[in-house]
Amino acid sequence: MSINKEIPYKIYLNEDEMPRAWYNVRADMKNKPAPLINPGTGKPVTAADLEPVFCSELVKQELDNDTAFIPIPEDIFNFYRMYRPSPLVRAYCLEEKLQTPAKIYYKFEGNNTSGSHKLNSAIAQAYYAKKQGLKGVTTETGAGQWGTALSMACSYFDLDCRVYMVKVSYEQKPFRREVMRTYGASVTPSPSETTNIGRKILQEHPGTTGSLGCAISEAVEAAVSSEGYRYVLGSVLNQVLLHQSVIGLETKAALDKYDIKPDIIIGCAGGGSNLGGLIAPFMGEKLRGEADYRIIAVEPASCPSLTRGKFAYDFADTGKVCPMAKMYTLGCDFIPAPNHAGCLRYHGMSTILSQLYHDGYMEATTAVQTDVFKAAEQFARVEGILPAPESSHAIKAAIDEALKCKETGEEKTIVFGLTGTGYFDLVAYEKFHNGEMDDYIPSDEELEAYFAKLPNVEG
Amino acid sequence: MSINKEIPYKIYLNEDEMPRAWYNVRADMKNKPAPLINPGTGKPVTAADLEPVFCSELVKQELDNDTAFIPIPEDIFNFYRMYRPSPLVRAYCLEEKLQTPAKIYYKFEGNNTSGSHKLNSAIAQAYYAKKQGLKGVTTETGAGQWGTALSMACSYFDLDCRVYMVKVSYEQKPFRREVMRTYGASVTPSPSETTNIGRKILQEHPGTTGSLGCAISEAVEAAVSSEGYRYVLGSVLNQVLLHQSVIGLETKAALDKYDIKPDIIIGCAGGGSNLGGLIAPFMGEKLRGEADYRIIAVEPASCPSLTRGKFAYDFADTGKVCPMAKMYTLGCDFIPAPNHAGCLRYHGMSTILSQLYHDGYMEATTAVQTDVFKAAEQFARVEGILPAPESSHAIKAAIDEALKCKETGEEKTIVFGLTGTGYFDLVAYEKFHNGEMDDYIPSDEELEAYFAKLPNVEG
Repeated sequence: MSINKEIPYKIYLNEDEMPRAWYNVRADMKNKPAPLINPGTGKPVTAADLEPVFCSELVKQELDNDTAFIPIPEDIFNFYRMYRPSPLVRAYCLEEKLQTPAKIYYKFEGNNTSGSHKLNSAIAQAYYAKKQGLKGVTTETGAGQWGTALSMACSYFDLDCRVYMVKVSYEQKPFRREVMRTYGASVTPSPSETTNIGRKILQEHPGTTGSLGCAISEAVEAAVSSEGYRYVLGSVLNQVLLHQSVIGLETKAALDKYDIKPDIIIGCAGGGSNLGGLIAPFMGEKLRGEADYRIIAVEPASCPSLTRGKFAYDFADTGKVCPMAKMYTLGCDFIPAPNHAGCLRYHGMSTILSQLYHDGYMEATTAVQTDVFKAAEQFARVEGILPAPESSHAIKAAIDEALKCKETGEEKTIVFGLTGTGYFDLVAYEKFHNGEMDDYIPSDEELEAYFAKLPNVEG
Repeated sequence: MSINKEIPYKIYLNEDEMPRAWYNVRADMKNKPAPLINPGTGKPVTAADLEPVFCSELVKQELDNDTAFIPIPEDIFNFYRMYRPSPLVRAYCLEEKLQTPAKIYYKFEGNNTSGSHKLNSAIAQAYYAKKQGLKGVTTETGAGQWGTALSMACSYFDLDCRVYMVKVSYEQKPFRREVMRTYGASVTPSPSETTNIGRKILQEHPGTTGSLGCAISEAVEAAVSSEGYRYVLGSVLNQVLLHQSVIGLETKAALDKYDIKPDIIIGCAGGGSNLGGLIAPFMGEKLRGEADYRIIAVEPASCPSLTRGKFAYDFADTGKVCPMAKMYTLGCDFIPAPNHAGCLRYHGMSTILSQLYHDGYMEATTAVQTDVFKAAEQFARVEGILPAPESSHAIKAAIDEALKCKETGEEKTIVFGLTGTGYFDLVAYEKFHNGEMDDYIPSDEELEAYFAKLPNVEG
């Protein structure tokens, strides 16, 4: 194998090159994301509406469409120094395997114990909770990636952390639960007897294995009914995309260091936390007319909100207790087929990304599960890293683009986000090895039925 | 938290600062490690004795007591570039938590998919097998750390990889098995019907859940009876310590870059692969009289070969088919109590480390399991990384030394090896959280009974 030494295998920034402010892409959007709507009043939510649920500083960030750069507080920066900068890796071995003239880079966010990029926002949200003098925070978790990140963050700031974990995951995925316990979090299987909504659901559906929608409702209730607690969320929200911009800022700084200009930027898309963070500064340049990039969102074919959803107001949660958001949505009652790319199962999409997609600033594509795992295995064998199924959607699209370059002979530069590792997804890998993977794709009729139930809100 | 910025949180070498040669500490030892003895002839083993089992180049490395530096072949170096240099981390948060004046550094080897330092030697052994034109290699694995590393390495060089995995682990730890399958390895539960020794054991002990000794015997038989195969091993051997010297060389280069001179160097010790690699260049200076360091091996109290074993010739394997080695041993029939620090359960110790310990160049200490997990949890909560139980033995000893500094006010510099991550050890963490951990320590009587059975060989 001959490796061009001019660009190192891994580009690490020095600590003094790490970003000191997050970038808020909303500041550069002509069409701002549509405001959240309070389902009670039918009017845009105010800070006062949100403050019983979220920390005050985070409410400010959520509603701030104008400030381009928000300084990263020193305590958060010091935590970032523990596991950041993350490497921007030149995928020399994958390029050679594919025999492509394309140059492939990936930003790897899995080198921390939470195993994903989720920690970037978890530490920020924990910091503001601590700063506000709160006792603790509540959240929900499905597979456990976000819960793990949040428990690490809370442990660092000595905050109480209460995680409602979907019961079926709690029972079938005890490992992530134990990681959270190691960091001192209390983990409650949801639905539980600890909340009104939990008790109600248990009474109506004895023996239920729970759902993310139910866990969200329990976590929100636990927050608003406990003195000194707030609720936190790991994706979808504007504040989360803001914190995750650290991914894109580091990526851009690393590329700039070697005068590399990407042609294509690819990220997997569930609620949008990784994609929104990765593309932020590049999208900023595009919005300001300073540069052009192809930006591609990759979603699972089983949960295709951007590619097949409606751009409309919808409830952010299945329980319909949270504000309504204007976004690409499959309908808040949509339940994707059992699908192991856990974090890409959300029915909607970040309002920021939805607006940008609507305005033609990015593309979207889908991949079926088996193809995603084929790409994951191919990547693992040459690049060493065992990727998370979520991240592998981006790998699949990057490989496809690199193979197109092979056909045309173009030496395009492709950058994709590798959001995390697959250590806790080996049941899915086992299904793939045994040929038992589910490649379900919802039918048009199915989706139309959900669209028919969308709330009638113009915003 | 105030952090002194002069020393970064993580010291990364640039690629051009990475070591280009392994360091063979035997070259600087006045008392060389005693030679292996062929149990058939009672004489020191020759290259010809070993070549049916091991690759020729590795046999040379195994027997070479004189060459100080052995160049790292370009293909191995390029693979190292995928996941190395590993970071040398300044444990600022742990120091603050302990309120110690000590300065603590750890060399973190867990940032690769195999999750440990084992990959450093796996890629070297796979390379030499490929270079010799072999079809594949065989090995055994217990918990699966070494098997995972080897499967990654073989996948990179397109070599067949046959792993005999102790049956109880195969069934109870399906995750590591799936990682190995992702990398294309064939994984056989041992004992199996695929070897004579396997069939014999199954006939004599129907329903047995297997043992590492049995898996070694099967892997060796599979290698010598298959055209184009050799056997490989992940610890204990001189060649393994040679390859692992990359850990110590990088550590030393990173420290030198900031003019840091360690006072104490700590590593966990099972067969010796990590400890031997970490300390190599420091031990070299000590042997040559150029510098002095306290070097501490930490073993589990349940398997205390250095601290309570005999320095004597013993069989390297339970099946007594491999050569005999002069080492600190608990007797090759010694079976440690069920103990989740899987890789530290070997009855013996590297002959190199045994000789160095015997000659007074290093110290050894033990820790009981519960204390190890307490240290692991404390470390995880402040430093973010979820450590492997093996590595956590070193954490425990480092914390103890740092607390001594707190008492005396000494600002000692402590460096320890953090060999890997604990993602696949969460059953053990769960036991710890539930207060069900086993702190068994063998009695003197027990050990004496094993010592009485040691072979009577002077060497």
